Amino acid sequence: MTMGRVFIVGAGPGDPDLLTLRAARLLQGADAVLYDRLLSPGALDLCRADCRLIFAGKSPGNHTLSQEEINGLLVDLAREGLEVVRLKGGDPFVFGRGGEEALALARAGVPFGVVPGVTSAVAAPAFAGIPVTHRGLAASVTVVTAHEDPGKEGGQVDFAHLAKSPGTLVFLMGARSVGRIAHGLLEGGMVPETPVAIVENAATGRQRALRCKLSEAARFAEREEVSPPAVVVVGAVAALAEELAWFRPEGDQEMPWCRPSPEDPTEIATHSAIARALGARPE
Amino acid sequence: MTMGRVFIVGAGPGDPDLLTLRAARLLQGADAVLYDRLLSPGALDLCRADCRLIFAGKSPGNHTLSQEEINGLLVDLAREGLEVVRLKGGDPFVFGRGGEEALALARAGVPFGVVPGVTSAVAAPAFAGIPVTHRGLAASVTVVTAHEDPGKEGGQVDFAHLAKSPGTLVFLMGARSVGRIAHGLLEGGMVPETPVAIVENAATGRQRALRCKLSEAARFAEREEVSPPAVVVVGAVAALAEELAWFRPEGDQEMPWCRPSPEDPTEIATHSAIARALGARPE
Repeated sequence: MTMGRVFIVGAGPGDPDLLTLRAARLLQGADAVLYDRLLSPGALDLCRADCRLIFAGKSPGNHTLSQEEINGLLVDLAREGLEVVRLKGGDPFVFGRGGEEALALARAGVPFGVVPGVTSAVAAPAFAGIPVTHRGLAASVTVVTAHEDPGKEGGQVDFAHLAKSPGTLVFLMGARSVGRIAHGLLEGGMVPETPVAIVENAATGRQRALRCKLSEAARFAEREEVSPPAVVVVGAVAALAEELAWFRPEGDQEMPWCRPSPEDPTEIATHSAIARALGARPE
Repeated sequence: MTMGRVFIVGAGPGDPDLLTLRAARLLQGADAVLYDRLLSPGALDLCRADCRLIFAGKSPGNHTLSQEEINGLLVDLAREGLEVVRLKGGDPFVFGRGGEEALALARAGVPFGVVPGVTSAVAAPAFAGIPVTHRGLAASVTVVTAHEDPGKEGGQVDFAHLAKSPGTLVFLMGARSVGRIAHGLLEGGMVPETPVAIVENAATGRQRALRCKLSEAARFAEREEVSPPAVVVVGAVAALAEELAWFRPEGDQEMPWCRPSPEDPTEIATHSAIARALGARPE
């Protein structure tokens, strides 16, 4: 039997329109798709009717399949001769454990490829109007996972080091950890007035972008009942959201991803040229 | 006259197939596209024949338009009533100065939106078989620009801080700065044996992925005549490329982005099912 192949593919954040052309095409051709708790379930609509869709789980505290089981399943499906897509939210190599799966495939002699995706670490802030780098404000960005490995005790996050970073900090999976993050950074000596933004359900119709100061972040997140998925941005750039917020999750349904002209906020919905352009998919 | 609109769009790294669906559709509908020295010029093939294509320049040391001129031009084009795409390699908010352009648009009252792209900071390492985070090796990733602002004196990069980072370091625009990076990190106390990878022309047929130790990086880059564009990865994950390298820039032209089965390296070229799937674009 011909050996199949596994593509480790990033689905991007919360909106299937942010899939790459390659990801979309691979989904269309796949015999089997193994997917996580996805931020953009619409991505699976691209699959063939006879495509085998397998949910790998991995919602916090509710692992449907262990990482070892996922690795083994990918190898088995490829050995059946299938074209397999391993679909992950965001980018597969940014806290996606894509590296572990790639190693398992390499060691089993299974052909594989990687299709990078739009990472939530950059896109979630962007959807809140926050550039993770900005001249004069942040010349670097550090991406950290705030969701501790269940097997580990204590923090593997080095808050003392992070607190001294001259650049932007982005914490993925930060919904349940805002208090711990703020405490750690303040303990590490970060200025209490440092701007913080919390972006919940980024790039979806349920997006919420909240802003506060580091010193008040813990109470603020609790009061606002921040829940997953959420990305936490710490640094001067978070304040740019005030001027730059452009995404309107509850606004114009046709194009929530463009902010209207302040002179004529109703203009967008009636602008037909771009609506037609949007109707046309790439050839 | 109806006010136009500007979309600040990421083109992804070096391969137009890594455009997002939204980016592709916006390019198809655009009246004008203002683009940088792009890593994926094929992206412009999506534009209409009558689309105004404007090169903004910004190759190192050869700014065709200043940032102020670009900002002004975007505002002017929108005021002409045009649908404008501002196309940038990678992601527009990761050292793309997209934030500055968004501010100029916001302050001029021009409607705008942002379309995040696949950032080279993650994709270039991925194309060399390097996950920027990996359990047990790197629980964070810091992205820095190695290309100093021409107006600034001395280093705005805090090498002493970076050298103590427990995670992966990714330097964008690093081709001409490998020596400075290595020197700065070694001065800051980083272990000389730390693995380094240099990825030149990532995700293109001219990709070169080089690996060495931090202590030998300066001489190595000089000997290999590393030239832009290049991304420099510093950290334990760089060593994973040895097992995980999958992209074959000079291999199978049909699908260089999947590594063949070790048992049968010729199998991929003759596998027609996925080739057909690849021929079909998303509907």
